[in-house]
Amino acid sequence: MSGRVVVIGLGPGPAEWMTPEARAAIDAASDVVGYGPYVDRLTLRPDQRAHASDNRLEMNRARLALKLATEGRAVAVVSGGDPGVFAMAAAVFEAVEEDPRWLRLEIAVAPGVTAMQAAAARLGAPLGHDFCAISLSDNLKPWAIVERRLRAAAEGDFVIALYNPASQARPARIVEAFDLLRTVKAAATPVAFARAVGRADETLTLTTLGEADPNLADMATLIIIGSSETRFIARDGARAWMVTPRAYGTRG
Amino acid sequence: MSGRVVVIGLGPGPAEWMTPEARAAIDAASDVVGYGPYVDRLTLRPDQRAHASDNRLEMNRARLALKLATEGRAVAVVSGGDPGVFAMAAAVFEAVEEDPRWLRLEIAVAPGVTAMQAAAARLGAPLGHDFCAISLSDNLKPWAIVERRLRAAAEGDFVIALYNPASQARPARIVEAFDLLRTVKAAATPVAFARAVGRADETLTLTTLGEADPNLADMATLIIIGSSETRFIARDGARAWMVTPRAYGTRG
Repeated sequence: MSGRVVVIGLGPGPAEWMTPEARAAIDAASDVVGYGPYVDRLTLRPDQRAHASDNRLEMNRARLALKLATEGRAVAVVSGGDPGVFAMAAAVFEAVEEDPRWLRLEIAVAPGVTAMQAAAARLGAPLGHDFCAISLSDNLKPWAIVERRLRAAAEGDFVIALYNPASQARPARIVEAFDLLRTVKAAATPVAFARAVGRADETLTLTTLGEADPNLADMATLIIIGSSETRFIARDGARAWMVTPRAYGTRG
Repeated sequence: MSGRVVVIGLGPGPAEWMTPEARAAIDAASDVVGYGPYVDRLTLRPDQRAHASDNRLEMNRARLALKLATEGRAVAVVSGGDPGVFAMAAAVFEAVEEDPRWLRLEIAVAPGVTAMQAAAARLGAPLGHDFCAISLSDNLKPWAIVERRLRAAAEGDFVIALYNPASQARPARIVEAFDLLRTVKAAATPVAFARAVGRADETLTLTTLGEADPNLADMATLIIIGSSETRFIARDGARAWMVTPRAYGTRG
C-alpha cells in the first residue's frame, strides 16, 4: 500500500459547509491528523486513528502526517475553513523538503469555505469587489510587514478581511491596526465584526471605522472593513445588509 | 406562501466542490435563476422552473429573482464558485432597494469554493499567507482603479489572484497589468496560470513574472502571482509545488 496525504478543510463550522470531497477524504483515511477541536468535530470509525494535537504545533502535525504516509498510511490532515488560507496546507509543504521520501509522496489539497466567505455570506455581499485577506498574527512575521500590508490595502481601497485579530500576548496590535487604517480610510467606512459564524454563539456587529471598538475582536472573530464603495443597506426590523457593489465609482 | 431568495455558488466545476447547503437550496427551490451554463449543470425536477439567461445580465437576473420571490416563489440564484466573490450576491443586493417590497424579502447567501481556492489547492499552498483578489474586468470600473490596486498589492508584497484576466474587447489589459507588476515585483516571482480547474480540460502552467506570457490567459483562467516569499518546490517527474510559507522574512 502506498501512503498519501490529503489536506482538507472542514469549513467554518456546520457540516453543511464541508464539501463532499472533504467528507470523502475523511472516509477514505486510515489516519486523521489535526488540531484537537477540529478532530473532535469528526465521527471516525473504530478502524481509523485520530492524532489530535495542540494549536501552534502546525509543523509537528505536518511532519507526523508525512511520516505516517511514508509508512503506507492514508492520512487526512484537517483544518477549519479552507486548508489553503492561513491553515495546514502551507505547513505541510514547508515540511515536505525535510525528507527526500516525503517529496515523492502523493499529496493533495481539497479546497474549502474559509471564515471570510462565511462571514460575507451572513452580512450580504461585502466581498463583491476586489479584496485582501490579512492575518494580524505576528507569531510568524514581523509587525512591520503587517503594517506595510494594512497601509497598502487601505491605499489601494480594497475591502479588507482581517484574520486572527486578537493576540493574547499583544492585545494592542488590533488597536494599532485600526489606528493605522483610520489615517487612510474614511471614518464612515462600514466595518463588521463576525464572531463564530455558523456556530451557536454566532454574533454579527455592524459599525464604522470611526466608531469601531477593536477590542470587540477575539480569536473567533473575522473583521471585514469596507472599501470607499461599501455601504450598509438599512432594513426595517432586521440587520442592515453590507454590500460592496460590482461597479466602482458610481457614488457621488 | 412567503417567497424567498437564496444566492448560492456551485463551486468551480465538479459536484464534489458544491457544499451540502447549496445542494439543499437547489432541492428546496421552486425556481432557479442563473447564467445558462450554470443552470445547465443542474438536474432539476419537473416541478422546478429554470430561468437561464446570458452572461453580463446580472442585474436582470437579480431583479427577476426578487420579483419571483414577491410572488411567493422560493428562488435559488446560482453562480459558479462563491456567489459572494465577483458573482451574483452583490448584484442581488444592488437591486434590492429598487422596490420597497424587495427589501422586506427573506434573502440568504450560501458561501462556496471560489476559483482562486480551487487553483491554490491544485498548485500546493500559494495562498498560505496574506493575499489579494483583483478582477481585471473593466466593464464596471475604470482601469485607473485596477492599476491603483495592482500597484498597492505589489507594494504591499501580497500574493495576488487575478480574476477575469482576459478581455475580448481589450486584450492589451492583461499585458498592461503584467508590465505594471514587473515595475515593482522581482522577475523571479513565481506565477501560475490555472485554467478550467476541476474540469476535463484543466491546465496548470508554472512560470515566473519575468518569463510569463500574459496572453496565455483566457476567461477561464485564474492567475496567481506570488509574494517575495512564494517559491516553487521542485519534484522528480511531477509538477513543482507552489507555496507561500506561513512565516515571513525567513529567506536570506
